[in-house]
Parts: sequence; structure tokens; C-alpha cells
Amino acid sequence: MTALFAKVLDDAPLLDLFRQTRQRSLSMIEGLEPEDMAVQSMEDASPTKWHLAHTSWFFEEFVLRPCDPAYSSPDERFAFLFNSYYVQAGPRYTRAQRGLVTRPTICDVLAYRAQVDEAVERLVERGAAPADIVELGCHHEMQHQELMLTDLLHVLSHNPLRPAYRKPEPLEVRDTGDLSWLVFEGGILPVGHGEETFAYDCETPRHDQLIRPFEIANRCVTNREWIAFIEDGGYAHAPLWLMDGFATVQREGWRAPAYWWQEDGQWMQFSLRGAQPVDPDAPVSHVSYYEADAYARWAGARLPSEFEWEIASGRVEDGNFHETGRLRPSAAQPGNTMLQMWGDVWEWTASAFLPYPGFQTAEGAVGEYNGKFMVNQFVLRGGSCFTPAAQMRRTYRNFFYPHHRWQMTGLRLARDA
Amino acid sequence: MTALFAKVLDDAPLLDLFRQTRQRSLSMIEGLEPEDMAVQSMEDASPTKWHLAHTSWFFEEFVLRPCDPAYSSPDERFAFLFNSYYVQAGPRYTRAQRGLVTRPTICDVLAYRAQVDEAVERLVERGAAPADIVELGCHHEMQHQELMLTDLLHVLSHNPLRPAYRKPEPLEVRDTGDLSWLVFEGGILPVGHGEETFAYDCETPRHDQLIRPFEIANRCVTNREWIAFIEDGGYAHAPLWLMDGFATVQREGWRAPAYWWQEDGQWMQFSLRGAQPVDPDAPVSHVSYYEADAYARWAGARLPSEFEWEIASGRVEDGNFHETGRLRPSAAQPGNTMLQMWGDVWEWTASAFLPYPGFQTAEGAVGEYNGKFMVNQFVLRGGSCFTPAAQMRRTYRNFFYPHHRWQMTGLRLARDA
Amino acid sequence: MTALFAKVLDDAPLLDLFRQTRQRSLSMIEGLEPEDMAVQSMEDASPTKWHLAHTSWFFEEFVLRPCDPAYSSPDERFAFLFNSYYVQAGPRYTRAQRGLVTRPTICDVLAYRAQVDEAVERLVERGAAPADIVELGCHHEMQHQELMLTDLLHVLSHNPLRPAYRKPEPLEVRDTGDLSWLVFEGGILPVGHGEETFAYDCETPRHDQLIRPFEIANRCVTNREWIAFIEDGGYAHAPLWLMDGFATVQREGWRAPAYWWQEDGQWMQFSLRGAQPVDPDAPVSHVSYYEADAYARWAGARLPSEFEWEIASGRVEDGNFHETGRLRPSAAQPGNTMLQMWGDVWEWTASAFLPYPGFQTAEGAVGEYNGKFMVNQFVLRGGSCFTPAAQMRRTYRNFFYPHHRWQMTGLRLARDA
Amino acid sequence: MTALFAKVLDDAPLLDLFRQTRQRSLSMIEGLEPEDMAVQSMEDASPTKWHLAHTSWFFEEFVLRPCDPAYSSPDERFAFLFNSYYVQAGPRYTRAQRGLVTRPTICDVLAYRAQVDEAVERLVERGAAPADIVELGCHHEMQHQELMLTDLLHVLSHNPLRPAYRKPEPLEVRDTGDLSWLVFEGGILPVGHGEETFAYDCETPRHDQLIRPFEIANRCVTNREWIAFIEDGGYAHAPLWLMDGFATVQREGWRAPAYWWQEDGQWMQFSLRGAQPVDPDAPVSHVSYYEADAYARWAGARLPSEFEWEIASGRVEDGNFHETGRLRPSAAQPGNTMLQMWGDVWEWTASAFLPYPGFQTAEGAVGEYNGKFMVNQFVLRGGSCFTPAAQMRRTYRNFFYPHHRWQMTGLRLARDA
Ligand SMILES: [Fe+3]
Ligand SMILES: [Fe+3]
Ligand SMILES: [Fe+3]
Ligand SMILES: [Fe+3]
Repeated sequence: MTALFAKVLDDAPLLDLFRQTRQRSLSMIEGLEPEDMAVQSMEDASPTKWHLAHTSWFFEEFVLRPCDPAYSSPDERFAFLFNSYYVQAGPRYTRAQRGLVTRPTICDVLAYRAQVDEAVERLVERGAAPADIVELGCHHEMQHQELMLTDLLHVLSHNPLRPAYRKPEPLEVRDTGDLSWLVFEGGILPVGHGEETFAYDCETPRHDQLIRPFEIANRCVTNREWIAFIEDGGYAHAPLWLMDGFATVQREGWRAPAYWWQEDGQWMQFSLRGAQPVDPDAPVSHVSYYEADAYARWAGARLPSEFEWEIASGRVEDGNFHETGRLRPSAAQPGNTMLQMWGDVWEWTASAFLPYPGFQTAEGAVGEYNGKFMVNQFVLRGGSCFTPAAQMRRTYRNFFYPHHRWQMTGLRLARDA
Repeated sequence: MTALFAKVLDDAPLLDLFRQTRQRSLSMIEGLEPEDMAVQSMEDASPTKWHLAHTSWFFEEFVLRPCDPAYSSPDERFAFLFNSYYVQAGPRYTRAQRGLVTRPTICDVLAYRAQVDEAVERLVERGAAPADIVELGCHHEMQHQELMLTDLLHVLSHNPLRPAYRKPEPLEVRDTGDLSWLVFEGGILPVGHGEETFAYDCETPRHDQLIRPFEIANRCVTNREWIAFIEDGGYAHAPLWLMDGFATVQREGWRAPAYWWQEDGQWMQFSLRGAQPVDPDAPVSHVSYYEADAYARWAGARLPSEFEWEIASGRVEDGNFHETGRLRPSAAQPGNTMLQMWGDVWEWTASAFLPYPGFQTAEGAVGEYNGKFMVNQFVLRGGSCFTPAAQMRRTYRNFFYPHHRWQMTGLRLARDA
Repeated sequence: MTALFAKVLDDAPLLDLFRQTRQRSLSMIEGLEPEDMAVQSMEDASPTKWHLAHTSWFFEEFVLRPCDPAYSSPDERFAFLFNSYYVQAGPRYTRAQRGLVTRPTICDVLAYRAQVDEAVERLVERGAAPADIVELGCHHEMQHQELMLTDLLHVLSHNPLRPAYRKPEPLEVRDTGDLSWLVFEGGILPVGHGEETFAYDCETPRHDQLIRPFEIANRCVTNREWIAFIEDGGYAHAPLWLMDGFATVQREGWRAPAYWWQEDGQWMQFSLRGAQPVDPDAPVSHVSYYEADAYARWAGARLPSEFEWEIASGRVEDGNFHETGRLRPSAAQPGNTMLQMWGDVWEWTASAFLPYPGFQTAEGAVGEYNGKFMVNQFVLRGGSCFTPAAQMRRTYRNFFYPHHRWQMTGLRLARDA
Repeated sequence: MTALFAKVLDDAPLLDLFRQTRQRSLSMIEGLEPEDMAVQSMEDASPTKWHLAHTSWFFEEFVLRPCDPAYSSPDERFAFLFNSYYVQAGPRYTRAQRGLVTRPTICDVLAYRAQVDEAVERLVERGAAPADIVELGCHHEMQHQELMLTDLLHVLSHNPLRPAYRKPEPLEVRDTGDLSWLVFEGGILPVGHGEETFAYDCETPRHDQLIRPFEIANRCVTNREWIAFIEDGGYAHAPLWLMDGFATVQREGWRAPAYWWQEDGQWMQFSLRGAQPVDPDAPVSHVSYYEADAYARWAGARLPSEFEWEIASGRVEDGNFHETGRLRPSAAQPGNTMLQMWGDVWEWTASAFLPYPGFQTAEGAVGEYNGKFMVNQFVLRGGSCFTPAAQMRRTYRNFFYPHHRWQMTGLRLARDA
């Protein structure tokens, strides 16, 4: 294991991080039924039960097996079931059929978690745990916590009864005001992660980028603005679209963001709080890169590059992250500063997910974490209302395929200065 | 509602039939976990939970709604979720996505069942129930009981842990002896259902068929015989196969019956009692029509027509039905009479599932029960070890597509006399 | 080679048959461009050029190779290219890619034909040819002549310029009158081929069938009647349809027969004579079994069984066969006799294509001619305006899958007497 | 029309360019049969006949219609048939079915070309032609000339007879020597097109890039080196691959470059000169981006960025372009300078095809030329043995999807200095 995933925490805060992270996964499934946690609604998504088991397997595989000779797995076959994509960690069960494995049940999985928790905690307590990998495992679990919510939303959205994951309380109404532009001068500027704190390999090395002067919007594109795009025929006007994007629109019959429908002329949206009217001031969410790109062209702007976003972002601040419990993006306060950079919605950038200059993958299975995805995807920045705050950084690079819409994805406009 | 589904039972035995049938469904799910009952492993199959709900909806839709003005459904939307294919009973949820509907949970479904049970029982008790439809509902539920087992087997077969539905006790070993042939003279003979007892519309009208002299095997084809077919290269020798059959063999990579694999030279089979060695004397099961047809050609014989089978069958007798609890086909006693006609495995016939001369469908949604399936399928006879004995008749016509293998399907040979 | 394909002709008439048949193929391609003859519009269809080569290969493979030691093929690889489906005659080129083989060109193929013709003629002249196989080869070629037309129509139908194969002359207008019913008494009646003349193996053995009294329509269903079905919402009313049929209608978006469209309220049809208004009195054509079956149900009737059709048919008579040159079905004269039995359109029957009692396939590759297709298809009777008259017989069994529409297929109604 | 496609030529040289370009297309089809030019072997490819017509339509649509009031098309429907993807130029015929349109024939298309040629020439002669668009049309036609060859190779490769487009003369054998590395210092360097000469919009604006020191190989990866990769198990070793790449390898069964197979231990390759042994010293061709990327990882190197390539490239020099008539990539002379930059094979770069800073599309349909493809594709540089020399530039950006292999695509290695 190389130092690409930097060790940063002493044992005591590490133990705190581990316990908090593991506990949050459990608190997230309160109110869910075994059925909710068992099914898989598409190949891209996974059952909640699988997420809970896979994140435990990660600690078992990369922490306990190498470092705890006394550890024995409750079932050696779990490695086959709960390895996601680490080819070098052995064969895996077919991804598309994770929803067909009914045993171990959620009860078995929770017992598995408890056993892993105890073993890892003891290992950390006696100073025998590889702190960098434990920390990686916690950040890994935070990623899966976000996926648990997006995947659960996708499952529930197939249910004509429209069940709500959490009490369907509406968001506070707020007028977000007109969009304004902030100017950045550019120059040769450093980007990427260069500190001692935790970051993923794909955020490194820190390096210089030549940035041209640019302007960037103070807030995300709102639902109100998106509805104007719809009403202007945006989804039907081919010249606004990348060719692959328009082909997708036509093949899939897209006419609005995912989870939207119309009832008596009112746009509705399915969310983890059930069916609710679309909030015009909240940022649009569940749009693909193709839609974000077409919208920007319609608006006479473009998406920011990931480096423009990073330079504009400043330090991580409070935001509508998972911790707010809102579970939906919410309207920005009016204001002429960089708003909504943190939380609410992931923001599509114009940057393909490619390696930074000098990027090296780690040796072994952990090296597969990010490197092998560096094709066909686009970078998103800033986290969402599904993201645990602790995992967010200015340099964090999320990535999805341009047709993906089941994530909490929105956009912010930019333009040449 | 016409009399095509004949009323035969007075209220008291009807109530018994209803209670026994409904109770059996419940006893069948003992030991199953909510996860087992929630998932759908392919479009042809349905979740256990759905079967339990759908069979209740059937009584609600065809008995309670028309005859019990006081009845109110726990949720009007259940009709949308649990209608299977009755176009005339209203719109339905997409069949292929039954596994995505996590709510109502199994607990909710059991409560729904209890409410329907009570309402139907009260209706029957006060003589207000349409007895023919209640009886139809019971037979309908027996069909679904069989499907619950076949669909569950399919679900569990995807689990690399190979969980057993019931304790994995092996079958008694028994030497079934060589196959012998019984001769039938033929003539102009009546077939189809003509009595006052219950039967499905597709078994009527009773009518004459011109039957040529034929011979039929005393028992089903065994696993030992099937292994000889495999070892003779049967699956690779195109001239033995119907063209659509061989194309399916190649596309699907079939090399043996469904649920078979080899371990150290020994053929193994996944069953509701877990993984077990293939019993050479037991009838082969989980073979498609294509395979049955190819085997018969290889053996210098043919499949019987459904009428030959019916004529050879005599009265329904005891057999290895669901009630034996074996859950697997078992070897026939040696003997020179018609053996294994009842239970063990459904027997593919050479007859396409087509209407009998003069067949009429009932008015309304119940008329969709069988008639609309009369294309592209083949008739099977005799019931299997998954079939409740009470629903079997000499004239019972089961039907599946020629590529289907997830049912408990085998074959018996015939030839011209 | 068994005698299943009976030898019936002496050498002199055989030579005539051979020459006429081979010549007709050539006359059929007059006016076609090399491009028209090269492309393949779907897997079910083949390029004209391929038909011309394959029918020559048939004589090469089954006549010249076994019987003419002096014969040498222009290219040994033609056997690979031009074998259709005879597994026992060696490997074949992928059916779906016949349109990708641009060489040999049409010129090369015509040279190949000429060489085969000369060799076969010499063989017949000196009495060394297997007359039954030569005759089979001629009937085989007649089948392909019909396919050449249906496949060509399919190719041309993709061209927005709507080119006509032959001069677009409209049909004579004729009022066909109301449908009337003819009654047949039934009984135990012989069906199937039992004479010394040529027939395919699947038409044998001649055998008895128990036929119930029935009525059958004097003529085929007309386009006028079909438009009434459309206008009554027939394509949208599920209870009229077999389930597989309605699923096909919805998946394919069928709203009318193949090759139909509407222009200013007028139904138009693409034909080998180009785009023409639908003739209301002509028999409907290019409908699938599913549509034929649904129409019959809508009309309160049913399709005849193949045996009812055969019994009603009497001797082959003149009809609108290929020889009339009309290339489109034409309206029947009014009259109360069995009209339009021969030519015009193939008539779907209610009979699955299955073996007759006692059916045996021939040894060797020729035995694959019909036997291996005996599943999933339905029998059609009577020939069409694309069928050479010489190949028609009362017992001739054509067969297609129930979703097929690119053939010249129509229907006639029947009902129980 | 904006000036994005710069006018650079006076009328006289423009006329020369037009005549030479149009004439080359004709000379390229010498020896081809109508069948060769009619078929379409996959959706990505088009028939030769279509290319010939489409390039004529381009002049008709963008030059003759706007500028020559006297011009009338031979058939107004050609615009529907021969528009490729210009949404703003009107509706188009389905791309995947171009091979089904047999009329107009190749003769008709050649007549269409002649009419367009005459009209354009007259327009240029009298100074009434928009010179920038005529020049664009010539470059457009050169692109299609290259596609005609790649698409023809794909068609012929499906023919088991392996016909050769040109006489199968083998290439001169030459020992290319070991790979050596050339060092570049980097800096802030200008890239992109900034001259008055012709270039596509996507090559502009010229702008600065921050380039780090890098090394780049003196020549392309050879077939000998590629065989070493194969023999080292490269195609089976997942850690070498991007995840999407390895999934493609497994789904498609890739084991070697496209058009390769083994005969008695010797690697063979299908080419426009027929089947020939793989030349070990020639650059590997017909590899996808996925394969190029995996190879580079295996070799401990990486692909160059498109800017590194551009900086290393110097001026366009003679190379193995279409004009050499070799029609196959050929071995580089040994030497320690940048070899094989021009011609032979297109070289995959590590750069996603994205807009340059400040990129603007032209108004109208011509603006669709490149902009709408800026997603999911990678940039290739340098031209190939199929590329007309006249269209090559140091800044030329070709682009294909990462799974594409039917183009003449290879690679050159780079690494950090
Ligand atoms: Fe993971
Ligand atoms: Fe049912
Ligand atoms: Fe044939
Ligand atoms: Fe073009």
C-alpha cells in the first residue's frame, strides 16, 4: 500500500471517525423494511443490504485480513458476494444480480457488521491497524452512504404507492433572487490535493493549471429556470444538444428531470420525502450531463471546468449536506457571493474525468479505487444534500457517466470573462 | 359469469376447500425470510409476496367486489399492483418490475390476506358467495402455490451460498428398472372434461378424438437415461433438434437440464432441499420442450400427444404431489403398468396448446384465464411434486413455452404401435 | 435418399420442368439493378442474388456432387456461402449477414447458374440424374422464387422514393359482394398427400382426420372488411387478441397491415407495383397470424383448421398465381362457391405446423427440409399471387411464425356448423 | 456563415482543389462492383454509394442552393436521403438503414455527381461561389474519401472469400529498430490553428497550454511489440485496463487487433490488399483507444496528450498518406527523430475531444460539423495511409469513440520527463 491515501489521523480521532461513520450507516436504515433493503432496481444501483455488507467487507479485506491474524470471517464466501469491482481482490458475484441474493438477510448482514466493527475497533485500540486504510474505509463508507440514498430513491420511485423514506415535510419557501456573476482573473494556479489530510488518489498530484479569466454564477440553476427551459422547447430543440445527448433524450423519452411528472399543470417531484411540488427556488436536481450541457447552451453560457470550480470554491463551508436531514436541495439565500457550492446538488463540470499530470495508481487492489474509471465520465464537484459533510473537500472529484440522472446532480453556469 | 367454471361444491365443503387452500399458502412460507419473498429473478417469475397478494386480490376482485357491498379494500391501489394479466379488470403494474415494489411488505400482505379471508368466509357462510368463483379462486391459488415453489427455486438458485428451502434430506434410493412399453389400441375416443366437477374452461368441451394405436412408456425418462443422452453428445448434435431448439441450446449454452452442474465428475442438482447429487433413478426434471423432443428423437421414440396421455392415464391416483413434502421427483417402483402419471414431474406432450373444438371463453375478465394463451405453448400433463393433489385431473392441461425450464418439467416416451 | 420425395417424372418432362423453372428465375430479375439484388433488409429475408445462388447450390450439392464425378464447382467455397440451413451438408455463412457478401457479384452468380444448368441438363439427358431430387430442386426453386418477390418487396419498402418493381398499373375495379358461408358435413376424412406425384415430406402420410361439421367463407377477408376492423378500434382492443399477439402489436406499433399508410384519409399500400390506393374489394394481405386470429374473433368467427381448408378446397384450379403477372391479390368475382382458394393470398389456418401421424424425415441433409421447423409456426394454405402455379397442391403446407407479415398472407373465416 | 472556416484560396486554385478532390473520389471506386458500393456493414459505416452522393449533396445544400438560383436538383428527395446529420438542414433518412436504399443506383449517383460538379465549377468560374464553403466541401470530401476506404475494408472483411480491393502486393520488408525517446521541455506554448489557411472550427482558437516536460517515442508501436503484449496475456489481465475497456474486451471477445487471425501460428491481417501476414515492423493498426491505453500501461508508459503530440510534431512532412497507394501502414526507417508522425496510422491521444477555450460554433447547419460530437470521444492525430495528404495539418483533430477499431488507428507512447 503506497502513501497515496495519506494517513492523517492518530488512533483516537480515527476511532471516533470509524465509530461515527459506521453508526451513521445504521441510523440511515431506521424505518426501512427488509424488502426495501433487498431489491436492486437497475444495474447501476445496489441494494441497501449489499451496501451495508460491502462496506464491511472492505474493512475485512483491506484491514482485518492483512493485519489481524486472529480474525476469521463469519463466512468465507462473503468475499465473493461483497467485493464490488476489485479484480485483484478475487472473483465477484455478478453486479447486475445483487438483488437476487436474499441470504444473508439484513439480520445476518447486521451481525456481520457488528463482528467487523468489534474487530476493527480492537485493532485500532491496540495500535495495530493501518490508519490510512481505516480512514480510507471510512471515506469509502461515506461514499456508499450517499449511494444508499440515491439507490433507495430509485427503488422507491418504482412504487406506484410512492412511499416516503422520511416524513414528507415540505421545505421552507424562500425567494432565491436573480442569478449574478462573479469574476475570476485566472492565471497559473495550483489545483488538486496537496495537504497531509485525507484525499483520494485521483485528486493528486497538486499541480498548476493555466486558467483564463472567467465568470461563474453565484448559485446553481433553479427549478424555475429549468421549467423555463422546458417551456421554451429545450428538450425538443436538437441544436442545443450534443449528438449523443439528443439521441439519449429521444431514446429515453426525457421531457424533464428524473423523478418529475405533471399533475394538473403543476410539476411534481418524487423525493425521499415522497411526492412533492417542485420548489421553484431550489436548485434543479437529477439532470444528466447532457441536459446540463444543453441548458447551459440555451442560457448562452457554459459549464465551468473542474478547475474553475475549484478556484472559485474557497474553503469548504457549511452547506445543505446529509447532516441537515433535509434530504432535498433547498433554495439559496439571495446574495452576490459564491453560494451553494457545498451540498444541495453535485455540480456537473465540463471536465472529463481524466488523470492529473503525474497521477499514479497505488499498488494492489486499492489502486483500482479510482484509476480504472478514467474514461467516458465527467467530473462533478461540491457534494449534495445526500453527502456526509465530513467527506467533502475543495478538491473532491466525483464522476458519473453523462447519461446518469439517478444521482443528486445539478449545475452552475460559467462563461468566459 | 358463465357456467364454464362449474359450481360443484355446496357451501360447507367449499368453506373447507377455501380454508385449506388459503392455509396451505401460509404454511408454505414458513422459514422464508422477507428478502426471499420480495425479489423477482426473471420476468417469467414473481415474488412470493406478490403471489400471496395476487391470489387474495383474485378473491377481492371476482368475489368480494361484485357480491359484498360492505367490503372495502385496505388500499384501492392494490388492484393495480396485484392484477396479473386481466386486461378487463383494469390496468396493471409492469410484470417485469414486480420485484421493485417493496411496499406493501410481507407483513402488510399477510394482513391483506387475513382481511380477504374473513370477508370471503363470512360471505360463504351466509350463502352469498358465488360458489363457482370461490372454487375457481381456490384452484387459482393452488396454481400459484406451485408457482411459488418454482419461482422460489429460481431465486435461490442465483445464490452462490445455495440455501435450502427445506432440510436437505436425500431421497430414498430405489432401482427403477428398465423402461417397458404399454400398448393402447386407439379408436374414436372421448377426451376433455365432461363431468360436473371443477375444471378449467380449456379442458372443455369433452369431444371425440381419432386415436391411432400407440405405445407409451411405463414411466418417465430418468436422470440416468438423460446422462446417457448427454454423454452421447446429444446437446451438440444438431440433427436431433428442432431448429428453434438448437438455436436456443447454442444461445443459452445449455449442456444439461436447468439447475445441474458437475463436481468432480458427479452431476449435482440444485433443489428446494439444496444442492444434492443427481438421483439416477428419479425422473429427469427442468428440461424444456426442445430438450424433451430432442431426447425422444435420440431414443427412437416421440412424445405422446396430450390425448394419448389422457387415454393412457386412467383415474387420478396417489402420486408424489406437493403433499408428500418430498419437493423433488422420486424414482418409480419397477413395474409394468402406467407409473408416475401423477405427480413427480409435469410431462411434456407433443400437442400445441390450442382450443378444443367448440371452445368458448367466458364473458368478462375471467374469460382471459386460459384462452388468450393459446399460441406458442405446449401442453403438459400429470402434475408434479410441486402440485397440490387436489387440483389434479385426468383432463388438466398445463402449458408452457417450449424454452421454459424453470418449471418441474420432464417427459415420458411414446411411439406408434 | 428415401422415396419420401417421390419421383414422378420421366426424363423428358423433367427436363422441361427444370428448364422452365430455372428460366423463370432469370426472367424475374429483369429490370432489377445489381444493388436491388445485393442487400438484405432483415434476418428473415435474403438478397435476390443469394436466392439465385442458393437454388443453384442445391442442385450442385444434392444432384451434381453425388451423381456427376466429372463436375467441379467454380468455387468450392460457394457451398459455405450458399448452404441455407442444411447442417448435415456442412457449415454455413451467418444467415443475418448474407447482405454483406458483395462478391460473387450478380454477374458471377449468373455464370454459376449457367454452369450448373448445363451440368444438370446433361445429366438428365443421359439419364444419370436422380429424378426425384431434380424435381425436388425445381420445387425448391419455386419456393425461392416466391421468396425473391416477398424479400424484394421488403427491400424496396425501405426506400422513401418508393420504386416500383413492375409498371404501376392499377388493378381492375370489381365489386366482390358480401361474404357467404358454405357448409361442410365433416366425418372421418382422408387428408394429406397420397398420390404418386410430387409432394413434400411434411404433407405425408395421407391419413384420416375426424372432421366436425363446419362452415367456411366463400372468399377471403377483404381490405374493406379489414378497414372496418381498424375503424372499430380492433388494434387497440386487447380482449380480441392472443396475449402474445397484443404484446407484439404494442411493441411494434402495428395499426394496420404491413406496407399500409394513410395519406389524406386514404389508405395506401406499397406493392411491387409501387405505392397504390388500397383496393377495398381485394383480399387483405400482409397480416400476421395474430392479426388474422384477432380479426376472426372480432368477426364472431374463427380460422379454419388446415384440414377443414383442405376438405373445402377441391382440386387446384386457376387462380391469381405468379403467372398472371398481377403481383397483387385481386378481388374475387361475387359468387356462392369456394372462391380465391388458389393464389391471391396465403391463408392462415388455426393449425400449428406439426408432423402428421407417422411422419418420418428422410435420411441425410434433405431430411432437414421441413421436419426441423415443426414448432412455433402455423400452417398456411392455397398459395398467393407470388406463387408459381406449378408448385401448388391441395395438400401443400406452407408455414410461418405467427408474427410474420412480410409474406403475402391473408385469411378466410370459418365457424362451427 | 461565419468566417470560422476561413476562406484562403483564390478562385483558380480553388477550382483545382475542387476538381482534384472530386476526381479522386471517382478514381477510388475503380474496380469496385455495384454490390461493393451498395451495402452497409454496420451503423457506424456507410455504403460507398452513399458517400459519393452525400459529398455531392453537401455542395448542393451549402453552395448551390444558396448561391445558384438557376440550380435545380435532379431529385428533391436526395436531400432527405443524403443529409448525414445536419439537423438544421432538414430531416434525414435513418442512418442505420443507408444500405437498404438500392435506388438511386451507383449509375444514378454518378450522374448526380456530374451535374453538381458542372454547376459548382461554373459558379466558381464566374466568381459567384462562396470560396470558404467550397473549400470546406473539398475537405469534407477528403474526410469521406478516408471513410470510403475504412468502410469498404469493413464490408470486404465479412466476405469469407477475402476479396482484395487492390492487387495484393506485399510491403517492402524493413527493420524498424528499437524504440527511442525524444525529450521536450514544455512551457506555456501555443496550440491550435491560428493561420489564414483552412482548418476546422474545432482546431480553433489558437491558445496557450501549460505543457510539462515530456518524452515521446520516435515512432509508433509496431506489430511486433503488440504481439509481445498479446503473448504476455495482455488481453486477459484486467489490471492493465480501464474498466469500460475490459468489459468491452470480454463482451466482444477481443484477443488481437481488428482484422487479425491466426493461421498455423502465424498472425494474419485482412487489408485492402487482401489477406496478408502481419508485418512485424509496421505500426499496429485497428486498435481501439481501450487497447492503446492498456498497451501503454503494460509498457510502463502512457499516451501523449493531443498538445504534446502537436508540439512534438513540427511541420507536416511527407508520409505514408493515401497518395502512396500502399493502403497499409509501413515500417518506419530506423532513426532518432520524430518518425511516422504523418500518415501510416492515426495516433490515439489521451485527450478527450472537448472544445478549446473560447470555441464557438458557426451559425446554421454547418455549425453542427464538429461541435456536437464533443463528448465521449478521444482525439487522434497525424493522419493515416487512408488520408489524403492535402487535408492534414499539425492541428488537425480527428476523433472516435474509445471502442472504435474499424478506422486505421494505432498509437505512439509518451511518458513524463
Ligand atoms: Fe465500494
Ligand atoms: Fe393468477
Ligand atoms: Fe432453400
Ligand atoms: Fe459528411
